[in-house]
Amino acid sequence: MTVMNIPMPREQLERIVRQVVRERLSTGGAAPVGAYSPNLVVNTSARHMHISPEHLQTLFGHGAELTVYRWLYQPGEFAAEQTVTVIGPRRRMIEKVRILGPARPASQIELSGTDAIALGIDAPVRPSGQASGTPGCVVMGPAGVVQLDQGVIRAERHVHMPPADADYYGFQDGQYVRLRVISSCTTMFERVLCRVDPKFLLEVHIDTDEANACDLPNATSVELLA
Amino acid sequence: MTVMNIPMPREQLERIVRQVVRERLSTGGAAPVGAYSPNLVVNTSARHMHISPEHLQTLFGHGAELTVYRWLYQPGEFAAEQTVTVIGPRRRMIEKVRILGPARPASQIELSGTDAIALGIDAPVRPSGQASGTPGCVVMGPAGVVQLDQGVIRAERHVHMPPADADYYGFQDGQYVRLRVISSCTTMFERVLCRVDPKFLLEVHIDTDEANACDLPNATSVELLA
Repeated sequence: MTVMNIPMPREQLERIVRQVVRERLSTGGAAPVGAYSPNLVVNTSARHMHISPEHLQTLFGHGAELTVYRWLYQPGEFAAEQTVTVIGPRRRMIEKVRILGPARPASQIELSGTDAIALGIDAPVRPSGQASGTPGCVVMGPAGVVQLDQGVIRAERHVHMPPADADYYGFQDGQYVRLRVISSCTTMFERVLCRVDPKFLLEVHIDTDEANACDLPNATSVELLA
Repeated sequence: MTVMNIPMPREQLERIVRQVVRERLSTGGAAPVGAYSPNLVVNTSARHMHISPEHLQTLFGHGAELTVYRWLYQPGEFAAEQTVTVIGPRRRMIEKVRILGPARPASQIELSGTDAIALGIDAPVRPSGQASGTPGCVVMGPAGVVQLDQGVIRAERHVHMPPADADYYGFQDGQYVRLRVISSCTTMFERVLCRVDPKFLLEVHIDTDEANACDLPNATSVELLA
């Protein structure tokens, strides 16, 4: 059997070449001493809120500040001790939704699809910060309540990476790439948004539905592909 | 640029050939008149219980029978009007878990990963019916309670197909195949268990986490691949 006459899309060819190169680089013998290999981390992003300074005052009282519960993988980001209750249009609610700090210009609630259905909110899949036209909800804190007019989303799966890792993979900021999680239910997540910034460490964020779908806690390996 | 010297795995070659053949068959002009094309259906399987005749009597009373709430896609299968409450080890519970009929030799509870975590049950991914070594739970009905010693699983994603469709795709019973769901969060589910039986209609079952992960309700197309 000969394969020469099968036309191969350039994209597919590039993927194979990249994979071969990576494999060569990652096996001991043939690799140049000190060859760089990124440390790919995949983390699950549970439901959370990003909060504006104004809403922080309303929900937690005048002069309130976020305090660190746990530092996250991205430098400077943290899970706060503060949590809120998120209430949907049919008065269904989810308690103890954790705030991620530091505060941001606009408040935003990131839910999984399962959460959104439970609350009765038709939350669209959006990159963080793209709140235009998204639904709102009621948020309750210990000192008050705010009505968000928009900002309830399912965060689009994405990968944070510094420029050196973007170079390694051959990815650009804004490009969609693929994440393969190998487990008892191996899954290839396509349309993973690539976000490149010198402040970032290499880390993929998927939501709890996605993590459960691929059984991330029991995964044996993960890889990023064009 | 020439691609002739790139060795291509046979598996990948076969995939491409199959895809090209399918595309040719599915576009009007070149296809032979009456060419067969399977009707691929992907459905979400929400949490549910399969019940044994004995447990039916205990939970719903002596002489109780399942009654049809809604017929399912697979011939003879139905969602029953009867529901139960499933209770985990830390007394957390999920109410209104629907029973699927007809009754089966052994009771089984199929949950999503999100459900299992909410209940505090470490449910493994298993094909339906493979209950050995799986955790149990307490099930409560209107007439009584049963303690299941085992049978709480996350159902392994699978595709039901009749032999004609298995022939069309070139799949065997027990083989793992791939499902691609094209949407705003396109996902390739690998390790989809292929179940071939003359009684089946062609239908993929994924759980609610998987359906949310790929935004199945808003998918534009689905395809099965080797």
